[in-house]
Amino acid sequence: MATPTVEYYETVGSASAILDQQLFKLLDKEGHTLVLRPDVTTPFARVAASKLLNNSPLRLAYEANVFRAQQREGGRPAEFEQIGVELIGDATMSSDAEVIALMIGALKRAGLKSFKVAIGHIGFVNSLFLEIVGNEERANVLRRFLYEKNYVGYRNHVKDLNLSSIDKQRLLQLLNLRGDEKKIEEAVELVENEAGKKAAGDLKKLWNMLDAYGVTDEIKIDFNLVSHMSYYTGILFEVFAENVGFHIGNGGRYDQLLEKFASKTPATGFGIQLDRLIEALGEEVYEPSAVYGILYSQERLDEALALATEQRKQGYRVVTQEIAGVDDVDVFTAQFEEVTFLIGKRGKGGQ
Amino acid sequence: MATPTVEYYETVGSASAILDQQLFKLLDKEGHTLVLRPDVTTPFARVAASKLLNNSPLRLAYEANVFRAQQREGGRPAEFEQIGVELIGDATMSSDAEVIALMIGALKRAGLKSFKVAIGHIGFVNSLFLEIVGNEERANVLRRFLYEKNYVGYRNHVKDLNLSSIDKQRLLQLLNLRGDEKKIEEAVELVENEAGKKAAGDLKKLWNMLDAYGVTDEIKIDFNLVSHMSYYTGILFEVFAENVGFHIGNGGRYDQLLEKFASKTPATGFGIQLDRLIEALGEEVYEPSAVYGILYSQERLDEALALATEQRKQGYRVVTQEIAGVDDVDVFTAQFEEVTFLIGKRGKGGQ
Repeated sequence: MATPTVEYYETVGSASAILDQQLFKLLDKEGHTLVLRPDVTTPFARVAASKLLNNSPLRLAYEANVFRAQQREGGRPAEFEQIGVELIGDATMSSDAEVIALMIGALKRAGLKSFKVAIGHIGFVNSLFLEIVGNEERANVLRRFLYEKNYVGYRNHVKDLNLSSIDKQRLLQLLNLRGDEKKIEEAVELVENEAGKKAAGDLKKLWNMLDAYGVTDEIKIDFNLVSHMSYYTGILFEVFAENVGFHIGNGGRYDQLLEKFASKTPATGFGIQLDRLIEALGEEVYEPSAVYGILYSQERLDEALALATEQRKQGYRVVTQEIAGVDDVDVFTAQFEEVTFLIGKRGKGGQ
Repeated sequence: MATPTVEYYETVGSASAILDQQLFKLLDKEGHTLVLRPDVTTPFARVAASKLLNNSPLRLAYEANVFRAQQREGGRPAEFEQIGVELIGDATMSSDAEVIALMIGALKRAGLKSFKVAIGHIGFVNSLFLEIVGNEERANVLRRFLYEKNYVGYRNHVKDLNLSSIDKQRLLQLLNLRGDEKKIEEAVELVENEAGKKAAGDLKKLWNMLDAYGVTDEIKIDFNLVSHMSYYTGILFEVFAENVGFHIGNGGRYDQLLEKFASKTPATGFGIQLDRLIEALGEEVYEPSAVYGILYSQERLDEALALATEQRKQGYRVVTQEIAGVDDVDVFTAQFEEVTFLIGKRGKGGQ
């Protein structure tokens, strides 16, 4: 599916999970505030809510450029190419599993070898914090440390809180809930309220489903995962590859986004940032076959074309070039694996 | 290659061949006038002129969205997906032939069966008009009729001109210069000045090259071809398919565009508008294989995945869906060619 690059700020911009200062805002001639597509999920939610929900669950895929205003480089707005899927209208854990398994399959298909998908549950973090610190404001402070992955700051903040030493210990214990599926049992023990236990149980269910998909080798449980995307409401995840400092993709469940446009509808999805994926692929990236060059003089065009056809049949990439169009033959031919010259009258000249 | 979606009006917007009122102009926070990419050729010329010309000729390809402000639909700016190539730094006719042959090959590969490429030469029209009507202003009036393909208006206008009946006849004769390669000989006869005869001769040379490429079945000579793209300087062409009212692609030689950004550099290229190509493909378009649906209850996920793997191996597209996530099973399953239900305990329930 494809949506416009430009959206009205009032409809899509403000509903987007992207921070307001990161929106690339512009004014049109009539004075309306427009935004360049800051993410894909929000425009998709708008279109799905208004037009597509008849035979849900819906499975949508996209490739689109997204824009962030804060990362300007030399006057050029930051623009990223992103691919992803959205599965809209399905509240079951099966749809989370399907989306995560599809993402892992796609990354393997792209040739990525060493990567991990960290999976958490925002419901677990939220209910544990609320249970211990008592209100959303104080919970937000803790969430912010986790979002920034500032674990030293988190520890120091917890030590200064006016809490029993048992509760402080429980908050610190959260930082250990990262690892294999055994961490899920520890999480169930750590939280006391039902919502928290159910969130951890959901993750166990998801793990078993991902096991059926055969993709648990790439999974890491991470109950510390918190996203700045305030719209995530359940399972959420981030993909990390060796040698890349940022996550190359992320996603999760966003059951409250669509009600901004129509009725409440559950949804889940993922997005992969292509430039980071390419960085992660590094040496692993597909090596194109060699390029052959054929330089010809005009009267031998047909010979050049016949040779190019022949070489292409053998799987080579071939560039044909009339020699009169080349300024510096040495520089031009340096880009080719092999060069054939068809110069002068037929049958003469070098080959 | 890829360039940003947003460019400064001062650099790319004003150099673009797109009419000023068609530019999608926006203001950023600092009050700069920006444009959403109105075409691809101009941004490519900017980048090529500043960075890429070292081992020219350069062969660049793109897929990009372009924007035109005048064609708004319901508040949504008009945005088109375009693919194309630019061959920069080569003044030879071989490069025009290469670009046109590549375009025809790509259209055939896309499955397009009935189409024609009308090829003309802006240099022929310009020199014929100047020779007969004496100045650019009067030539422009004639060019405008041709650009609008308003041949009745052209005839009426010619009749009213203060010219000898022979010259009027010559201007009317131009309208007959559309057809096969024999029209080239007629064109050489019609024009008296050397520039005009050379332009017609260039077209003959191009025809012979396209013959070597084996694509002349798709070529129509059209000396009436005039583009609103003021930057075309030589060969120019438009692709027409059956059943589509507008051309689905066009291109030509633009030897004066790059000097707006750096030194004078010859160039040629084409662009195809994807929505029009898809319209032209119509019934001819690739028919995807049938989609199979597998509806399962949660405890039978592994069976569903095994069946999906099996069906995909056989070449089918398969959707797996937990039945608990479906509101209306009849509506949801109506989209599939065939549906398998894996419901209830293993070995029971319908299959």
